Amino acid sequence: MGKNLLVGQSGGPTAAINSSLAGVISEGLKSEKIGKVYGAKHGIEGVLKDNIIDLSFFSDDEKIKILKQTPSAYLGSCRKKLPDMENNMETYEKIYEMFKKYDIGYFFYIGGNDSMDTVNKLSKYFKTVDYDVKIIGVPKTIDNDLALTDHTPGYGSAAKFVANTTKQVAKDNTAYDIPAITVIEVMGRHAGWLTAAAALANMDGETYVDVVCLPEVAFDIDKLIVKLEEIMNKKNKVVIAVSEGVKDKDGKLVCESVSVTDGKEDGFNHAQLGGVCKTIEALLKEKTSWKIRPIEFSTIQRSFSILTSKTDIEESFNAGSQGVKFALDGKTGVMVGYVRKDSDKYEIEYQAFNTEDVANFEKVMPASMITEDGFFVTDEYIKYAKPLIEGECDIVYKDGVISTL
Amino acid sequence: MGKNLLVGQSGGPTAAINSSLAGVISEGLKSEKIGKVYGAKHGIEGVLKDNIIDLSFFSDDEKIKILKQTPSAYLGSCRKKLPDMENNMETYEKIYEMFKKYDIGYFFYIGGNDSMDTVNKLSKYFKTVDYDVKIIGVPKTIDNDLALTDHTPGYGSAAKFVANTTKQVAKDNTAYDIPAITVIEVMGRHAGWLTAAAALANMDGETYVDVVCLPEVAFDIDKLIVKLEEIMNKKNKVVIAVSEGVKDKDGKLVCESVSVTDGKEDGFNHAQLGGVCKTIEALLKEKTSWKIRPIEFSTIQRSFSILTSKTDIEESFNAGSQGVKFALDGKTGVMVGYVRKDSDKYEIEYQAFNTEDVANFEKVMPASMITEDGFFVTDEYIKYAKPLIEGECDIVYKDGVISTL
Repeated sequence: MGKNLLVGQSGGPTAAINSSLAGVISEGLKSEKIGKVYGAKHGIEGVLKDNIIDLSFFSDDEKIKILKQTPSAYLGSCRKKLPDMENNMETYEKIYEMFKKYDIGYFFYIGGNDSMDTVNKLSKYFKTVDYDVKIIGVPKTIDNDLALTDHTPGYGSAAKFVANTTKQVAKDNTAYDIPAITVIEVMGRHAGWLTAAAALANMDGETYVDVVCLPEVAFDIDKLIVKLEEIMNKKNKVVIAVSEGVKDKDGKLVCESVSVTDGKEDGFNHAQLGGVCKTIEALLKEKTSWKIRPIEFSTIQRSFSILTSKTDIEESFNAGSQGVKFALDGKTGVMVGYVRKDSDKYEIEYQAFNTEDVANFEKVMPASMITEDGFFVTDEYIKYAKPLIEGECDIVYKDGVISTL
Repeated sequence: MGKNLLVGQSGGPTAAINSSLAGVISEGLKSEKIGKVYGAKHGIEGVLKDNIIDLSFFSDDEKIKILKQTPSAYLGSCRKKLPDMENNMETYEKIYEMFKKYDIGYFFYIGGNDSMDTVNKLSKYFKTVDYDVKIIGVPKTIDNDLALTDHTPGYGSAAKFVANTTKQVAKDNTAYDIPAITVIEVMGRHAGWLTAAAALANMDGETYVDVVCLPEVAFDIDKLIVKLEEIMNKKNKVVIAVSEGVKDKDGKLVCESVSVTDGKEDGFNHAQLGGVCKTIEALLKEKTSWKIRPIEFSTIQRSFSILTSKTDIEESFNAGSQGVKFALDGKTGVMVGYVRKDSDKYEIEYQAFNTEDVANFEKVMPASMITEDGFFVTDEYIKYAKPLIEGECDIVYKDGVISTL
């Protein structure tokens, strides 16, 4: 029997992060070179606190199936970033101690930028000590902002939710024969990939979403009003998808640009308007007479396991199992990434990327995917994103409610 | 060939209102006693403005299938309430004229309270003039607040969305190992039926939603805080589902209880906090140190055709087709209603109720369905609502996005 495997999850949940966990667990339980399969609760915090559980009960296929459709991070997540090694050796020594205690030979960390930083730091540390452990990163983020990989596990499912929900609320927006503007707020602090996905709603040839506002483009309320007037003159109904992270030309977050006070106190900001969709509502109300409906997709967009992309869920699972294969091949300090093959039919292959090149870097949308006026995406984006949202998963329900673990 | 059929939709959209439309159209096209099948755009407004379209292209079964999964009101909706007959005869005469022009013998109005009022008034009017037309109401509302009928078409699907989305965001709420409170805002101005549906998330035995705040119970922030403290002491994670229509003991809407000014103007309410979930966030922030995440389900909850209740979609279709059968039987001024059979297995039958007894009355939740402390529902509610959300529909997608008309 070989050394044991430990897996943890980190960062904001996605609807696919448990699918990657399922991939790691399944491949780990299958391999004769691997002993036990353990999970760290709340990521690296669980390692440091000895909060580690045995995952062998996942040898049951039905459990793996339900794990794949369970929202949020099954093992629990954390936001902890490992400190630099210098002057913080005790953190690393504690991890060393825990790995030794559980005889860990393979450590998998499923997460975003910060998690890849953890993988990078840990693999470097373990190269300096006399302990053989392979440390692998499995990417996840609805933001799609990781370098090198064609796209990230979790993005396709969130994009599918955004596209479909935008289409459905846009339909709702047309119900009455009156002018109506809906402003949808989509997650993504620094990159507009997920907001751009609203444009996928229009693939049937109709226009459901008219404008997207991305963090890659400086936000200007007056330009937006001109654009909206143009559209309102034609059809009286507009849907805008706005990234939570849009900034003005000075780099100031739009969601912080309207100060709201309670009324009871003078001059002190008290209540938050609550996201950029409310701020844009307030800005538009100030300058126009339009009726605005702000809708924040909130955590629904990252937890809606009922509507995931089959492509994404399968790839996310494979990213996990491929990570185990990379570790068994002797790789360490790498992240599993997707490389899109240069073929007519969408196809990807899995590659190991050095986490050094991935950690702490955010990939934003290229200018070629954004229209010149900055208010929509180009066909290049649609061509890129379309295959990522394809396919639907069979979801197991009990009494009309999704089954979860 | 008999007289023609006209159908219109009214009030707030639901994910099932087009299924009832499909039922009326299908049955209308099937009957040899009925000539053409017409639709009025934007309800009674379309009748008054001669905005009427031929619906015979729906003889295509595939079109009916897609119509059933199309969100919002396919024909467009309106909020118009018919004036009383006295002193407003011109409105009624205009409708008379239009019915005559299109040789309408059967008029179907799919909507809520106000629409049943329209059916009631129109059927009374047409009894006073020399024109034979059968006027039938087909109920729809996510609020479930119509009298006499066991439940309303559209409620089951919205309830299913609320239960499932609550479960999914509650899972997300537990991701991090930190105290977390999520406040979900659910539609329903006067009745708590839809907010209560959040409790259906707990049917697997786990507690995803801890507290529901219904308009039937006077809201008291201090009592809520005591309740939350009790729960937070046990598990550090809370999910609350709140009806948009909760009121304090004086009947004042909670969503209007925090006044927010812009800061630029003094004393004048300017920006709205945006719904009761934001208000409760502000109230809790004022008195506690808890981190709150407010989530408004907004129009997503009434337009999410991707996750409907098969029971509801089938019943809604049948309510439409049954309406046509009632008309052909000579009934007029009635609403199709559901009567739950007194059997172990859930089963309903369709009955014609006099719209006189339905119009302008809102059915709220009975005290027996609410726990004594007012913060949750009883088993009686779960037993009532459980069958209404059962079964999932096969949804047709193209390129990963729901197909609609």
